[in-house]
Amino acid sequence: MSYRTLTEQEAVEYARKIPNLFPQDARLVSREIGDGNLNFVFHIKDERPSGKSIIFKQALPYVRVIGDSWPLTLDRARIESEALILENELCPGSVPRVYHYDTDLALIVMEDLSDYEIMRKGLVERKRYPNFAKQIGTFLARTLFLTSDLAMSPLEKKRKAASFTNPELCNITENFVFTYPFLDDPSNAYNPLITNTVQRIWSNDELKLEVARLKERFMTLGQALLHGDLHTGSIMVTEQDTKVIDPEFAYYGPMGFDIGAVIANLLLNYAAHEGHTPDPQEREAYQAYLLETVSEVWRVFETEFRTLWEEQAQEPYAKTPGYLDAYLLDVLKDAAGYAGCKMMRRVIGLAHVPDLESIADPALRAKGETLALCIGQELVLQRGTLSGIDDVIKLIAASAVQN
Amino acid sequence: MSYRTLTEQEAVEYARKIPNLFPQDARLVSREIGDGNLNFVFHIKDERPSGKSIIFKQALPYVRVIGDSWPLTLDRARIESEALILENELCPGSVPRVYHYDTDLALIVMEDLSDYEIMRKGLVERKRYPNFAKQIGTFLARTLFLTSDLAMSPLEKKRKAASFTNPELCNITENFVFTYPFLDDPSNAYNPLITNTVQRIWSNDELKLEVARLKERFMTLGQALLHGDLHTGSIMVTEQDTKVIDPEFAYYGPMGFDIGAVIANLLLNYAAHEGHTPDPQEREAYQAYLLETVSEVWRVFETEFRTLWEEQAQEPYAKTPGYLDAYLLDVLKDAAGYAGCKMMRRVIGLAHVPDLESIADPALRAKGETLALCIGQELVLQRGTLSGIDDVIKLIAASAVQN
Repeated sequence: MSYRTLTEQEAVEYARKIPNLFPQDARLVSREIGDGNLNFVFHIKDERPSGKSIIFKQALPYVRVIGDSWPLTLDRARIESEALILENELCPGSVPRVYHYDTDLALIVMEDLSDYEIMRKGLVERKRYPNFAKQIGTFLARTLFLTSDLAMSPLEKKRKAASFTNPELCNITENFVFTYPFLDDPSNAYNPLITNTVQRIWSNDELKLEVARLKERFMTLGQALLHGDLHTGSIMVTEQDTKVIDPEFAYYGPMGFDIGAVIANLLLNYAAHEGHTPDPQEREAYQAYLLETVSEVWRVFETEFRTLWEEQAQEPYAKTPGYLDAYLLDVLKDAAGYAGCKMMRRVIGLAHVPDLESIADPALRAKGETLALCIGQELVLQRGTLSGIDDVIKLIAASAVQN
Repeated sequence: MSYRTLTEQEAVEYARKIPNLFPQDARLVSREIGDGNLNFVFHIKDERPSGKSIIFKQALPYVRVIGDSWPLTLDRARIESEALILENELCPGSVPRVYHYDTDLALIVMEDLSDYEIMRKGLVERKRYPNFAKQIGTFLARTLFLTSDLAMSPLEKKRKAASFTNPELCNITENFVFTYPFLDDPSNAYNPLITNTVQRIWSNDELKLEVARLKERFMTLGQALLHGDLHTGSIMVTEQDTKVIDPEFAYYGPMGFDIGAVIANLLLNYAAHEGHTPDPQEREAYQAYLLETVSEVWRVFETEFRTLWEEQAQEPYAKTPGYLDAYLLDVLKDAAGYAGCKMMRRVIGLAHVPDLESIADPALRAKGETLALCIGQELVLQRGTLSGIDDVIKLIAASAVQN
């Protein structure tokens, strides 16, 4: 079958033919629940007592959000399905299970996570997730370490890196994260009340040099298989559990990029509560929780990574004194730098975050946005001076006071 | 036709069938001139007045030099032919012309360079090549800059990097350049007279940490399409001209690796004259010429690279103040580090260089080898402190005195 977009009815018929998914007598209903910008997402459920449900995710051959006529490779569905399968092997239960993949239709049939909610939404509502840091830190350590040269045969790693070559999706990041937000590009969209701050960023050559270096590392440094877009909208949570979804941007890149994405989105939420939460006690308590989470995500990552290194490293130099410490410090510096870039782009660039966008009053929103830009700049400019996660937390606290 | 090794007679018959290569009435004779370790190399010549000659290079499916039964991918012939064609486009005349490539036979038919000699041989005889630095510096700048994200579409660059994925050949470098020489591996082979120096290297954790970091960059940093094995045995010269041959190790790696290979092999020759050339005036004059050549190779590379950057960079950040300087300084530090690793491996590891091996007296040879190890260590350990090529030259001069 050659590619065509499925209707809801066709999705139901397709689902019925997949072996061992639904009982013979299932009465399947389907509804489209995606935002339709990049993909169709169908929720297909058995209305009879089995109650079983699954998700169909079908890639569209263009990007509706960016421009009517921007074509986008369907190969991203292959990459997403292969990344999900691999992530589940490396860190069982951390991602939705893939039941079936159809190359021609660019279609992934996977586990339904209707019991979970998008983490970003929960954070806006000041919810807390006691297992999140442990679960995401473990996910990061396992997926990054175990796909790197530290753990894999260098022969197999290079073949895997080639098979996860993902030029079109990487190019979206190169442009919309690292380039357009830092120059006066027509794609940018920012609150007019922060114009002065944005213009100071555009004329800050020191900052732009550092962003250029981080972009260069993103484009050249194939350390590990990244998720590639690990913001809190790609994380689904319950009070107890965490699932990572949507790895269509997966490729071999610098480990710090994924960790930085998690940190950036926790800190964007932190900044948003400047506008969202008028009660200072409530605000400070939740912001303290977010900083504690940033810190714990890193600590869990570091602890797990050290254990994996000590127990499973294949690299003959792994036991060389100082190597592990130096490696982790570089990852931390990258994570801080990438977090900074991602915070700034979500304020200045095309794609904003609901954390800030949901603040109705532009003046209150500007307060949060300015704080996000301030933290973002500090993370990029000061990353070379960091010696541990505590330095990151201090730097954020100092930005908040300064703001 | 499926793969089989050609006999000399079959090579002649094959050559006759390639269109527009030899006249109809050509009387072709063939002789095998390769060392037979990795490849068959046939020289095929028309004995009639056309006098035309060509080279057949056919890859063998194993490495005879390392072990009777080490299989080695024939895909390296595709990589070599594609690299030669690309290098000729980017830097016309810098490599032998490719007339024909046969995938099934892993066979490259190319320009005969019988008028040229292997540069290493000339250097042992203290010959001078007045155009070499200019020509190799230009080759390095053009092939490295023009295959990088600085000059290429990032989409096309990633596709090219994937097509030059070269795991088996890279693995030879990872093992025999970066790993085995720095631990007591059975593949090592060194002059017993330098045992103490070698053991000091093996127990120098600071040095090993730096070698580990350089190895890591070799394995992860896809900056540009490298030659991958650019020693003076892969360079053919006349008094006027320079040709680069044998890019079967080509892959996307750190630019400094190719530049470091050229520097390392000039410096191995420099060290070898400690043993080769008893007359101090002759020795010092030739060593000064070699240092001047190291310096000029870098200066030409840098000048050409700066011009290309200013005139042809596609990267939007290229005009950011400080970026070009910072980029070049990182390349210089890498070049120094890789030069250091390569010098040490040629003394301690499996594959030695004729520059040193041709010194018959083990005590005299040890003198050269010790100097090579001393310079190699300094280049690796001090590379972070370098601010220009003059610092490299000072560091070498200091090693020579210290030695």
